[in-house]
Amino acid sequence: MVRIGILTISDRASRGDYADLAGPAIEEWLAHAIASRWDPVRRVIPDGVESVRAVLSHMADVEQLDLVLTSGGTGPAPRDLTPEAMRMVMEKELPGFGEVMRQASLRDVPTAILSRQTAGVRGTTLIINLPGKPAAIDTCLSAVFPAVPYALDLIGAGRIETNPAVIQAFRPG
Amino acid sequence: MVRIGILTISDRASRGDYADLAGPAIEEWLAHAIASRWDPVRRVIPDGVESVRAVLSHMADVEQLDLVLTSGGTGPAPRDLTPEAMRMVMEKELPGFGEVMRQASLRDVPTAILSRQTAGVRGTTLIINLPGKPAAIDTCLSAVFPAVPYALDLIGAGRIETNPAVIQAFRPG
Amino acid sequence: MVRIGILTISDRASRGDYADLAGPAIEEWLAHAIASRWDPVRRVIPDGVESVRAVLSHMADVEQLDLVLTSGGTGPAPRDLTPEAMRMVMEKELPGFGEVMRQASLRDVPTAILSRQTAGVRGTTLIINLPGKPAAIDTCLSAVFPAVPYALDLIGAGRIETNPAVIQAFRPG
Repeated sequence: MVRIGILTISDRASRGDYADLAGPAIEEWLAHAIASRWDPVRRVIPDGVESVRAVLSHMADVEQLDLVLTSGGTGPAPRDLTPEAMRMVMEKELPGFGEVMRQASLRDVPTAILSRQTAGVRGTTLIINLPGKPAAIDTCLSAVFPAVPYALDLIGAGRIETNPAVIQAFRPG
Repeated sequence: MVRIGILTISDRASRGDYADLAGPAIEEWLAHAIASRWDPVRRVIPDGVESVRAVLSHMADVEQLDLVLTSGGTGPAPRDLTPEAMRMVMEKELPGFGEVMRQASLRDVPTAILSRQTAGVRGTTLIINLPGKPAAIDTCLSAVFPAVPYALDLIGAGRIETNPAVIQAFRPG
Repeated sequence: MVRIGILTISDRASRGDYADLAGPAIEEWLAHAIASRWDPVRRVIPDGVESVRAVLSHMADVEQLDLVLTSGGTGPAPRDLTPEAMRMVMEKELPGFGEVMRQASLRDVPTAILSRQTAGVRGTTLIINLPGKPAAIDTCLSAVFPAVPYALDLIGAGRIETNPAVIQAFRPG
């Protein structure tokens, strides 16, 4: 059974100043895109290098999730610290994810170039950073998800089958 | 009052072997693009990790400029050392700037992929590396400037209004 | 006389489990693309940070090759360690190469974003990582080679002339 972490990183959502919209948007997107069985592991935490580092390494090393999708904290503002935590957690960075997500978002908004989102591998867990806004989350997931099932195969994580009407997963022969 | 550093990095221009064309090209571009009030802070310095590092950190920490645009020193040649200085100065790198500037320049010349230009934040200063040639400077500024006013808002720098006939600045609602 | 290293990085090819297809594909591509005289220096080695690091630094520092093209070891799997070795060997990374190669490969397969291939300079040697599959090798070489002769000029390596029917090398005037 594949388990997918859905980690909302936001000072305000974690304090309850507003409802977390990003986590439910990710979960709904995955519910449409994934055809095989999977379980979500949801969490909402404050911004901060140490808070994000601790949760990401726990999700990878202790909970051994197959995939973790984060949202938030990737911009240039002082409290945007997700990339700093990623740098401490990733064993292998996959720069193509950030490039393609920025490029896809750039078709919608020129400020997409301000995002520092990336992806990387820790053990048998793939971690991908997403933006905080639901519309941008959809754009980014649609851009990279065709490569995710094969990435999970390569790192020894669980097997995902996608719903081909939503996402055409590609596994080289 | 927003203050913008225009920093030409070139052994030969700093020795007076030839006139600095890059600095005036940047200033002229900004004069057309920015509608609100701003002051330029011009400087021409030699290549070198220490020379560039010292001036960039002074411009950010002591002079507290809002934006610094550098030109030159981003190629693969032995005296191209701007990226090495940037690595010591940036608190947060914004990789999307380099990606988008290389991609825009690539429409003109295939050697655009040799550029190591990037951008990053130090305190409340945004630093963006530009190429040395005036034509390439225009291409790069046009590609990234729509995101610059919002970037300055996010890092706590001064507010810029653009001339919409030249640059459509974008601030998410 | 320009000398070009062709380095296949593969546990299985180095053990003889299967024939090395990547090295010959690179050599054949170069034979069509380069019009001036050059000599290949072929090697097949196992994956691993230390094995790749040692050979790359020997090819640059001792053999003083002008250009080294590696294939393999750039994915996210546990034994893909070419980028880790590159990080130890490169004096200047040229991120535009990886960006453009991933973008070109992405037109063929969505899993191109999983590649961590890059390029960099060590002394007077340019090192470029290529994928392991011959079709992807052609795609990547065609995407970046127009900039290679000028890159070699800039770092003080030997001069290459290309066959303009295959590759239009560009040297800014």
